[in-house]
Amino acid sequence: MVSEPMKRIQGGVCAPQAFRAGGIWCGIRKKQDKRDLALILSDRECAAAAAYTTNRVKAASILITQEHVSSGLCRGVVCNSGNANACTGEAGLDAARRMAAAAAKSFALTPEAFAVGSTGVIGVPLPAEKVEAGMPALAACLSADAAGHGAALEAIMTTDTRKKDIALEAIIGGKPVRIGAMAKGAGMIHPNMATMLCFVTTDAAISPALLQKALSGVVGRSFNRVTVDGDTSTNDMVVVLANGAAGNKRIEAEGAEYLAFEAMLLEACVVLSKGIARDGEGATKLVACTVRGAVDEAAAETLAKSVVGSSLVKAACFGADANWGRILCAMGYSGADFDPQSVSVRFLSAAGEVLVCRGGASIPFSEEIAKKVLSEEELEILVELAGTGAGPSAGPGSATCWGCDLTYEYVRINGDYRS
Amino acid sequence: MVSEPMKRIQGGVCAPQAFRAGGIWCGIRKKQDKRDLALILSDRECAAAAAYTTNRVKAASILITQEHVSSGLCRGVVCNSGNANACTGEAGLDAARRMAAAAAKSFALTPEAFAVGSTGVIGVPLPAEKVEAGMPALAACLSADAAGHGAALEAIMTTDTRKKDIALEAIIGGKPVRIGAMAKGAGMIHPNMATMLCFVTTDAAISPALLQKALSGVVGRSFNRVTVDGDTSTNDMVVVLANGAAGNKRIEAEGAEYLAFEAMLLEACVVLSKGIARDGEGATKLVACTVRGAVDEAAAETLAKSVVGSSLVKAACFGADANWGRILCAMGYSGADFDPQSVSVRFLSAAGEVLVCRGGASIPFSEEIAKKVLSEEELEILVELAGTGAGPSAGPGSATCWGCDLTYEYVRINGDYRS
Repeated sequence: MVSEPMKRIQGGVCAPQAFRAGGIWCGIRKKQDKRDLALILSDRECAAAAAYTTNRVKAASILITQEHVSSGLCRGVVCNSGNANACTGEAGLDAARRMAAAAAKSFALTPEAFAVGSTGVIGVPLPAEKVEAGMPALAACLSADAAGHGAALEAIMTTDTRKKDIALEAIIGGKPVRIGAMAKGAGMIHPNMATMLCFVTTDAAISPALLQKALSGVVGRSFNRVTVDGDTSTNDMVVVLANGAAGNKRIEAEGAEYLAFEAMLLEACVVLSKGIARDGEGATKLVACTVRGAVDEAAAETLAKSVVGSSLVKAACFGADANWGRILCAMGYSGADFDPQSVSVRFLSAAGEVLVCRGGASIPFSEEIAKKVLSEEELEILVELAGTGAGPSAGPGSATCWGCDLTYEYVRINGDYRS
Repeated sequence: MVSEPMKRIQGGVCAPQAFRAGGIWCGIRKKQDKRDLALILSDRECAAAAAYTTNRVKAASILITQEHVSSGLCRGVVCNSGNANACTGEAGLDAARRMAAAAAKSFALTPEAFAVGSTGVIGVPLPAEKVEAGMPALAACLSADAAGHGAALEAIMTTDTRKKDIALEAIIGGKPVRIGAMAKGAGMIHPNMATMLCFVTTDAAISPALLQKALSGVVGRSFNRVTVDGDTSTNDMVVVLANGAAGNKRIEAEGAEYLAFEAMLLEACVVLSKGIARDGEGATKLVACTVRGAVDEAAAETLAKSVVGSSLVKAACFGADANWGRILCAMGYSGADFDPQSVSVRFLSAAGEVLVCRGGASIPFSEEIAKKVLSEEELEILVELAGTGAGPSAGPGSATCWGCDLTYEYVRINGDYRS
């Protein structure tokens, strides 16, 4: 069975059937210029899966969401911006619980039905009473259209300069199945106005166990391949809710339907991951690094991530400087196994491509063309091992990681963030 | 036996007896504004020890020096700036061998008597003929005074804005023993105009095996605790030459004399390490992070290095912003074991000190005092685990790591380095 190609649709997290969303300003942010409290709700019980920050310092929202999602069932997500509720002790846990309880009360559900997200300043008590006071208005304004999605998305954003959202549809098991998603993150990550958050809705019918399996694999190939500044937030979270409203036969085994669903989820998460990298604090460019011919996928990922994570490579991309020595250097300290003399490096963009290194050594190239290629807003660094990547010693491992350039603006944003 | 306190003296690498040094411009750098070829020579056979970059991509100079120093005996170091001789293939190895041979010829020694260092642009063939042509003049200008040291130091510098050198004297085994050292590095490291280089001379008599043991331990507690931008160069190298001219009984066991020598070597390397961090590309501040109360020294080092290596902490130091949440966050993703709720954070400088976090949570502090403390050119972040570091669960591990702030100037320097 060949699955139908997936197509992009409108509506974000409200595109899948039987989901509503909304966002309001409840006063956590001092200025009323932006919403600060979001709610996403399914009208039906959902299979739920989540992935969390690996930071040992975990925000209260992470700890409470882990409790609530561990059942594999959920109805919604409540999320604030303007306060990370991290490094806030017992009072922080209490505040996160009160957020879930406030959402639950509005819909006669249990607090465990809600995942909780927070993003903002670390170490400042979260005023849960503002969430409680705002909840009736938020519950009243939920809508199942693009406006509801847009309001919720605005409410989870902090220093983000671009909206990061997507919705996709594909035929799975004979039924149109939809996925919608939103993300925030501008800095991977900004531990003060912290965090990468991603909320995914789908009307697919799928078991909680397979939903978690799909999410874990997809996160490894999308969000975990983004680096903006090497910092991992205390608050990072990806939550997926699957309510089954599409009416497909519930996916309970790893067959074609599972793979079609996983492909949709991967596509959604890769699009958002690239959006996060492109919106890296102060970034002017999206920089992708693809490594081919590595011994395995893990080695390719380690090499590619080291390249896009190198401050020196990032600064060279900002300056449109074809400084390939820094790429070899970043590969060299990545810890992954490779033969330096097997490396070719090529820069690609909409303006063309230029080969700058072959056999681990310099080759003549046009600085003029290189400058043009590197001056585009989307740039790829293609690293091929074993000469052309087709040689006898090339391994099967390939991977792409995403990052951005390092700019004056990054320093400005982070040099005096709290003021 | 209580060893005499060590004292600072003048003369750099020429301070120890029977060492000479010099530097000339031989034409590797296009502009004649700075010397580019250095030589350090002992008049007697030396015990030699070295530590090298862990980068898998190793410059030709590293590979040749490894060959030459493996015997544990050496007479000198020849080093150029302006060209890293890295990613240059077989021709690069040949050029490094020719550098050693040219130095050897001038003094009727074998090429194996010389360590070879290079720093500069990656991937450009090194013109060994310029080294050969310049060597007679360089050999003729060696001197045993501070001028010789100064000329050699200038010749190994690249983007360095400060001289990094030191000389110390202490009584060991009843004899005055001297250590002299020079380092370059402005960016840990700058893989294009690359590299941390450090050359240490001493007139101590010590076996090659104990010299290597002392160096390996000291490098772990000095240069390996510096981070400027997380990048490790292809060319990093520390070489120590010990010629025995002080006339102390040769150190062949780990007794008091060994420990006194190790202490001197550590002091010299720590001073240079701090100098490198302070001279980080674009840096306006030296930032030290000390972690106390960790489970062991390795954990303390991992935590402290993660803090001084965090782009967000570095940018906050630049902005004199007491953003302690970023410090906890950087500790959290370091991979080291600790209890987030046991953490206290204090900023210290010549302007005073301020406690900003206790028990892993916010405590009230004066933003005005914090701003003053953080505005100094030398800044310490003191992290104590288990509350005050004296609590029952505090471990014995402590370590200090050094870095610098992240500034607009760093981006400018690295955004268009090759132009």
